[in-house]
Amino acid sequence: MGAVLGVTRAYFLGASVKEVGIGLAGYGTVGKGVVDVLRKNAAVIAQRTGVRLSVVHVGARRGASDLANTGITVSQDVFDVVKDPSVDICLELMGGKETAQGWIEAAFARGKPVVTANKALIAESGTALLDRARAAGVPLLFEAAVAGGIPILKALREGLSANQIHWVAGIINGTANYILSEMLAGRSFAEVLAEAQALGYAEADPTFDVEGIDAAHKLAILASMSFGTPLAFDDVFIEGISALQPDDLLYADNLGYRVKHLGLAHRTEAGVELRVHPTLVPKDSLLANVNGVMNAVMVHSDAVGSSLFYGPGAGGSATASSVIADVIEIARCSGLASEQLVPALGFQDQVSTPTVPVAETTSAYYLRFQVTDGPGVLAHITQLLGEANISIEAVIQKPVHSQTGLVSIIILTQPVKETIMDGVLSRVAAFPESGAPVVKLRVASLEGLN
Amino acid sequence: MGAVLGVTRAYFLGASVKEVGIGLAGYGTVGKGVVDVLRKNAAVIAQRTGVRLSVVHVGARRGASDLANTGITVSQDVFDVVKDPSVDICLELMGGKETAQGWIEAAFARGKPVVTANKALIAESGTALLDRARAAGVPLLFEAAVAGGIPILKALREGLSANQIHWVAGIINGTANYILSEMLAGRSFAEVLAEAQALGYAEADPTFDVEGIDAAHKLAILASMSFGTPLAFDDVFIEGISALQPDDLLYADNLGYRVKHLGLAHRTEAGVELRVHPTLVPKDSLLANVNGVMNAVMVHSDAVGSSLFYGPGAGGSATASSVIADVIEIARCSGLASEQLVPALGFQDQVSTPTVPVAETTSAYYLRFQVTDGPGVLAHITQLLGEANISIEAVIQKPVHSQTGLVSIIILTQPVKETIMDGVLSRVAAFPESGAPVVKLRVASLEGLN
Repeated sequence: MGAVLGVTRAYFLGASVKEVGIGLAGYGTVGKGVVDVLRKNAAVIAQRTGVRLSVVHVGARRGASDLANTGITVSQDVFDVVKDPSVDICLELMGGKETAQGWIEAAFARGKPVVTANKALIAESGTALLDRARAAGVPLLFEAAVAGGIPILKALREGLSANQIHWVAGIINGTANYILSEMLAGRSFAEVLAEAQALGYAEADPTFDVEGIDAAHKLAILASMSFGTPLAFDDVFIEGISALQPDDLLYADNLGYRVKHLGLAHRTEAGVELRVHPTLVPKDSLLANVNGVMNAVMVHSDAVGSSLFYGPGAGGSATASSVIADVIEIARCSGLASEQLVPALGFQDQVSTPTVPVAETTSAYYLRFQVTDGPGVLAHITQLLGEANISIEAVIQKPVHSQTGLVSIIILTQPVKETIMDGVLSRVAAFPESGAPVVKLRVASLEGLN
Repeated sequence: MGAVLGVTRAYFLGASVKEVGIGLAGYGTVGKGVVDVLRKNAAVIAQRTGVRLSVVHVGARRGASDLANTGITVSQDVFDVVKDPSVDICLELMGGKETAQGWIEAAFARGKPVVTANKALIAESGTALLDRARAAGVPLLFEAAVAGGIPILKALREGLSANQIHWVAGIINGTANYILSEMLAGRSFAEVLAEAQALGYAEADPTFDVEGIDAAHKLAILASMSFGTPLAFDDVFIEGISALQPDDLLYADNLGYRVKHLGLAHRTEAGVELRVHPTLVPKDSLLANVNGVMNAVMVHSDAVGSSLFYGPGAGGSATASSVIADVIEIARCSGLASEQLVPALGFQDQVSTPTVPVAETTSAYYLRFQVTDGPGVLAHITQLLGEANISIEAVIQKPVHSQTGLVSIIILTQPVKETIMDGVLSRVAAFPESGAPVVKLRVASLEGLN
């Protein structure tokens, strides 16, 4: 990369490092955040790094009238940014797929390094893009793609690089975490979602956030960086939060748990477990106490044990912080041979490893049976669990529900393989007393979670 | 640095990077941890970094019989390690001052980079040592000196480098945190300390840990890295935990707070506040929920807002994780000009900034007055507080204590400058009803702490 940049801007090499021109495409929340933070903090960044970062060109399809008279070139054709010879490092902050990918490849074609905040693009097309970056001899970094302002990828790529990582568990979607935090007060999913949309915490189309797709994108990146395995977004088991009922959050609370929407990547002997789903975590754990729109990632590794990284998962200036950290890393490492750079995914090469199907994973379970008649059914259910060698941790029986006329029986089990649990549940579903589908939630059963 | 290392081991430069020889002095908990982790994880480290790290020489004044037949050279004269031409990077893991400093300087004299876990040495002599490192053209890194296995210095030096940092608040001494966690059950400081010593969590001489000196060393390093100010250990206001009574932990709990031994570095208009003292933090904050020997550092910065980094603050393998991360950084950056390296303290140059005397800092306060007669005195105290414009947040009065015969009046105040508070307290001390010294604890009054 040094050589290529050397062609465009001589100051990239050696003691004369001074000014780096930044070009960015996409002038929404994150793009504006980057421009604002670089303006406000150019001096402290220079004091830290010896590098002065200046935004010289912004590509904004709808224009950027607030940049008039700032000296920053504004183009409605985002590809003009890449072509600008005063742009040394290109920031892809548009989101989306085709245009973003084409833009990044256009930057590579001109030997320019790229920083992106685009989690979907990296999770789904990162392997191909990183191959192209390597072929072009330029870096592609994406700290901002996971957990916004938290420097979690830096921690995995460098801070914890002496470790074998056992598992990663993250609250990595602020919208979902906000909704769950509010539902604990007994409010419905629909009501809280509408409020979150009004507050700007949730998109008009909230599918990506509440159905776990956004979290799965981030988990795929975290897993690859933790285990040195290829990006495997398609293998992630995904369950969202839209079907959750406030009652279950409250009953879980009675049992000593909070329900959090976790992304879990776990290396086991059988392979790598990749799953995103509502999860019961002990109330006194740090993850249980991450509230509102905040994010947190817990990492369990052999040398360190448990560590946790907490902060804002979104927002213009927080995301900008991570984008700029990548820019600084690129500006700094421009003299290094590519083998000496920290690999974007933390490993020199990815080693294929099977993904464990969710049916083969092991969890403790929170089960809520809704039945027409309590005591006799309870005996029948516990008998079936016993026959499958599933131990029971706790049982709560709730009185007849005024609207459904059904009795709720809540059972917390010991860890068991999901396929065995599902076998029992399908037999319970056939009971004549079963009045509604069983609510099945997984309980975090990871060593060192607390 | 590249050139100097190039003289000793050609493989430090370019595509042939392969093997790096590690020499370490000090074969206690951390030294053993480094040898163990490098043995166990050499393969994953190589997969991540393309560098194979091998311990080739251990300096151990008392010998290291378990290293017989491992191929590792063991010397009782630790200076033999530095002289060994197969040693590329030197790890100072002895602790202490004079010998450690001399050893590090001997490594510099041979153009060898150094990694140390020695917080006292860095906090007290870091400025001089870093000058010598610069003169020798080699790096000196010390991630393990603060918060053990948590990559907090990496986060400050790189992950958050786009930010202006407002404050840092850390639980950075595991021994003190363990003792406070246990005292919450009503046990005395002396009893818990004895237990901690038996468990190996506290040293035979616990002064450094329980009187806050160790935390002050770490805070001095955190502050310099956060604000770009010189290391200023001598300026840190230090108050330990040995005088704390379990009653105050319980009363604070009643008021919704946990007492934590925090290191606080806060940049204000007047300068930098540097203090280590028992501090009340809201019970539902993440810092309040960091228990036992664990450490956590919360950082508040302009772009990100609040972020928190949690993990083990001590232990052989956790500390080794941070030592080895530094080694990897050095091995990787060997081709870079020194201006392109991430500065050890995060800034190219330190800018002197006054330290704010503790009398000029502002906190809310937890006060416990111990008096012979309740109601009349309470009126008198509240009158004095009112005259000093100190608002009261809460008052609790406890019944007469069976042993002392005194009544405890607990008052939680709004934030006020310490010198004003002390003025009031000295007047209360002169009351004829005052039966024992006032307990004065500071309440964390930092924006964004929760």
